[in-house]
Amino acid sequence: MSKQTLPDIKTNFSDWYNEVIYQSELADHSPVRGTIVIRPYGTALWERIRGILDKKIKDTGHQNAIFPLFIPESFLKKEADHIEGFAPELAIVTIAGGKKLEEPLVVRPTSETIIHYMFARWIKSYRDLPLKINQWANVVRWELRPRPFLRTTEFFWQEGHTAHATAEEADAEALLMLGEYVDLAQNYLAIPVIVGEKTESEKFAGALKTYTFEGLMQDGKALQMGTSHRISQSFAKSFDMQFQSKEGKLEYPHLTSWGASTRLMGAVVMAHGDEKGLVLPPRIAPIQAVIIPILKRNADNRAVLDAAKDIAERMHPLRVHIDDDEAKSPGAKFYKWELRGVPVRIEVGPRDLENKQAIVTTRLGKKMAVPLDAIDEVVGDLMDDIQNELFDRAKKRLQANWHKAAKLSEFGPELEKEGGVYQTGFCGNPDCEQELKKYKAFTRCLLKEKTFDSCFHCNLPSERDVIVAKAY
Amino acid sequence: MSKQTLPDIKTNFSDWYNEVIYQSELADHSPVRGTIVIRPYGTALWERIRGILDKKIKDTGHQNAIFPLFIPESFLKKEADHIEGFAPELAIVTIAGGKKLEEPLVVRPTSETIIHYMFARWIKSYRDLPLKINQWANVVRWELRPRPFLRTTEFFWQEGHTAHATAEEADAEALLMLGEYVDLAQNYLAIPVIVGEKTESEKFAGALKTYTFEGLMQDGKALQMGTSHRISQSFAKSFDMQFQSKEGKLEYPHLTSWGASTRLMGAVVMAHGDEKGLVLPPRIAPIQAVIIPILKRNADNRAVLDAAKDIAERMHPLRVHIDDDEAKSPGAKFYKWELRGVPVRIEVGPRDLENKQAIVTTRLGKKMAVPLDAIDEVVGDLMDDIQNELFDRAKKRLQANWHKAAKLSEFGPELEKEGGVYQTGFCGNPDCEQELKKYKAFTRCLLKEKTFDSCFHCNLPSERDVIVAKAY
Repeated sequence: MSKQTLPDIKTNFSDWYNEVIYQSELADHSPVRGTIVIRPYGTALWERIRGILDKKIKDTGHQNAIFPLFIPESFLKKEADHIEGFAPELAIVTIAGGKKLEEPLVVRPTSETIIHYMFARWIKSYRDLPLKINQWANVVRWELRPRPFLRTTEFFWQEGHTAHATAEEADAEALLMLGEYVDLAQNYLAIPVIVGEKTESEKFAGALKTYTFEGLMQDGKALQMGTSHRISQSFAKSFDMQFQSKEGKLEYPHLTSWGASTRLMGAVVMAHGDEKGLVLPPRIAPIQAVIIPILKRNADNRAVLDAAKDIAERMHPLRVHIDDDEAKSPGAKFYKWELRGVPVRIEVGPRDLENKQAIVTTRLGKKMAVPLDAIDEVVGDLMDDIQNELFDRAKKRLQANWHKAAKLSEFGPELEKEGGVYQTGFCGNPDCEQELKKYKAFTRCLLKEKTFDSCFHCNLPSERDVIVAKAY
Repeated sequence: MSKQTLPDIKTNFSDWYNEVIYQSELADHSPVRGTIVIRPYGTALWERIRGILDKKIKDTGHQNAIFPLFIPESFLKKEADHIEGFAPELAIVTIAGGKKLEEPLVVRPTSETIIHYMFARWIKSYRDLPLKINQWANVVRWELRPRPFLRTTEFFWQEGHTAHATAEEADAEALLMLGEYVDLAQNYLAIPVIVGEKTESEKFAGALKTYTFEGLMQDGKALQMGTSHRISQSFAKSFDMQFQSKEGKLEYPHLTSWGASTRLMGAVVMAHGDEKGLVLPPRIAPIQAVIIPILKRNADNRAVLDAAKDIAERMHPLRVHIDDDEAKSPGAKFYKWELRGVPVRIEVGPRDLENKQAIVTTRLGKKMAVPLDAIDEVVGDLMDDIQNELFDRAKKRLQANWHKAAKLSEFGPELEKEGGVYQTGFCGNPDCEQELKKYKAFTRCLLKEKTFDSCFHCNLPSERDVIVAKAY
């Protein structure tokens, strides 16, 4: 924990991102290619996010279950689009128990196939529907260019899988969970998002429709933060998943799946961080306030340490940490907890005690002396203020960098140079999407609104606007 | 969910065990050899147990972290005993991203090696110690004879890993966590346990000492419910894990690891279940009380349904479920929730409402009419009563089946026929342990006390008593 310098966030965002993750101890390099070790601070952050999302999933009537890590290769091959999409990314177990396996086992890249197999066993009648299942799991997709949290060979997520009697119900479910994700992003992660639908060429391998929510990172690139799919009925057909309807007919259920992952931690880092390190929204921060007693060497520090404990108790149930390490200077501690993005720092020294106050500094730079007997109230209010300010700041950034423009040939060079999101028209042809690559950009999502009559590239008509951006 | 019959628990415990798990919907068969699907009811039970244990782990100063699923084969080979112990059980990824891997990756059977590799990076000075890490993870050990929860190819557990400056501290840590496990077993799972140390031949591959806690199941077999190890320093040496002591010397840290798994659910099933199905201790039951409104066909059931809701609200924060399925008879519902081991059932029908009461029946057979305005208090008390009664019942069973006997040749036949645990003397020689196999028995653990002067088999002296039993 010696003092290291972070790369400049403005000129070298990519290195800043990696370094802030390692220096703040969210994660560490791993000896296994493409993977990371999520350290206690990062795990605590993930447990906060996971807890909030788990509650949302349960409150909307879903139940958690646990399915096997290994999927027989033949299962993945049952749905043609699905295997085509995932084949290049699979990790495959060929030897187990000292023997070559007759049928290789794939380490799940996602669990549609095995879960649909089980759904086919469980769904017999309309009475068994809707079936609303969620799984928290590790999944593996071999990555050639891994980046911590954003793209790692192994990552952690929840994957919801549901089956419904009607297409309308399944449509509503996919949108309901998209809404829960958007609430998580905006009201907990403090990241305003663009919500829309993926184009044909960008949707999930085996989906009818893929909904997405995308955040704008500080380097001007968009990040897909999670997706919610209406799954093709060909999955139900591939796995013989049929139910007897109220009218006594055999029908195929209508399916959804939706997932969000540890990538959300990358989004938080890139949306809010600054030159000093992480900036964590109070609602998800593992430590909401750090108390730093100002200790003197070779002196009786009991009064100050007691005061620190009193403050901590008074602030319950806020998540508070007292940094009473005598081997470190206050300056080193300030640096450490700023790097780790703790929303509020509270210093209390002998002189503060005389004045019955503590010095409160927010991670966003506000500083004030606060009477000890009001500290819980003041810091409690600051939590809301910081949460709101982070969201507002990110929202202004999104608005300032959200452009409307008609023709790629005109906005492309600016997009490539400065980033940002561009709302434009799109004919729906993947060949036009290919043109975006010249500017290192991609379609991110289709919006509901229509402000442009023709495609950003060709002159064919556009039915819905599309968002294009550089992306992770 | 048609009514099926359970195999007889007295004469066919093994089939009863499998069937009660499937029929109660704790788990289902999986198409992947050696694995199971943990269904929502089983997952909810696991989440309860995991939540209790996670709090214990955090309250004792450990932090969760997340390490990779895949371990390079060379890591496992660094510690000779370790690889020898695990080699026959490994699942190995040889192909990933469409290519043969240069170095195969092992799907972790346990994480000592990868965690110790990281410990070596993190531990530089005595100031970095103790390092107390826990991981919740899935692990894979290829099983030839899988049994749901008890032995599955993939299972779910926590594995704690700690490093300490002194052997004394590490010893204390291994015992501390053993104590937390025993508290979990006895005060939450309601299973009295025998606590001791594994013999040389039964200890973990790479441990100096393995502590264990063992429960006695209703078929007279012992079940190892979890273990806590003092890990050999050869691990620290294999991974170059060294720290500078206060005195400035380079030293190897002293290590522990400890784990408990989804096997605990198997213990709960086998310790408490009966001819009607599961019997779940209230502290871990996903549903503590089920309310069954007695509905009449083609009638206005609103008053009864409202009463059921009132009762549910009144009982908050108990975990309550209302079964208002109109398609099922009360009898079918009684059967269903008994099978699922719900501690308390509350029936309320029109006549009960007239009498301002409900009929309360415990899973242990107590039945009473309870005034509606006292129902929260009565059911709250019943939770404690049932929890205690389950523990007492299991404790009496353990005491009644805990025998002291000097010579295997005398007690062996009875042990083989009736099961139970036998306390006897042991010289420490693995050859004598081999003799137990004639009676399908094993040493389970060494006790602290000494009541026998010589070994159960040979006549060499015994220093500590040993527990022998048939086992899972």
